[in-house]
Amino acid sequence: MKIFVAASYSSKVDYSTGEVYPEYRAWLEAIIEQLESYGHEVFCALRADNWRINDLEPAEAFKLDEGEISKADGMLALVSNTPSAGVQMEIGMAIAQKKQVVLAHEKIDQLAYFNQAVVALGQAGEVVLPITSDPFAAK
Amino acid sequence: MKIFVAASYSSKVDYSTGEVYPEYRAWLEAIIEQLESYGHEVFCALRADNWRINDLEPAEAFKLDEGEISKADGMLALVSNTPSAGVQMEIGMAIAQKKQVVLAHEKIDQLAYFNQAVVALGQAGEVVLPITSDPFAAK
Repeated sequence: MKIFVAASYSSKVDYSTGEVYPEYRAWLEAIIEQLESYGHEVFCALRADNWRINDLEPAEAFKLDEGEISKADGMLALVSNTPSAGVQMEIGMAIAQKKQVVLAHEKIDQLAYFNQAVVALGQAGEVVLPITSDPFAAK
Repeated sequence: MKIFVAASYSSKVDYSTGEVYPEYRAWLEAIIEQLESYGHEVFCALRADNWRINDLEPAEAFKLDEGEISKADGMLALVSNTPSAGVQMEIGMAIAQKKQVVLAHEKIDQLAYFNQAVVALGQAGEVVLPITSDPFAAK
């Protein structure tokens, strides 16, 4: 499947160099590689930018993500106790397009009110990290 | 027009009584009434609940909002420096459905990265509060 990985970005960058924080990059790369190990084709904006925020305007970055979400079959959205405005918007876009959405978070993080709702309604799955089996496998 | 007003909810409640904080209610009521003064039909979950969080599960509350967004022509989303997971998800749902979206905020509040993007792309309008003219009037 084509999977869009939605993850916090603009808050995870060292703006003196433009580079994504190395611990965050390592954490996210491991998740992407895990998905790829199940045979999925993964798009993640941070990796597509080679882990360095580029000179794109927000508008161009958003258009790229919007197009990739439309093309994707599913979304893995990485959420935490601190909501990301961008990730939450992307979840909404994917839900409205009836994509297969999975919300993934560390054990310490709680799902926000409406994130709980979409899981309860079966509009999204929920995975507590680390991923140990394909979250997009047919149930 | 039918307008859905998206506003922070679960973080704006006094959980000892279930009531929405009175200052927040007054602020939001004034915005809703201003929209109604232009002839719009407004749905806002907090008012629909009579300013008291009810016993609905998050799932039921989300389903109600999801249905109202689908029926609406437009959305006024109230955003601030502290992103609301729910409001951002609703913005994404409205954008994906090509609704007429307007992001409204106090002067002190900056638009988050992807909120800037949808404004720059013309997928949403931007209003700095207070509202002084119909934000949904044909341009």
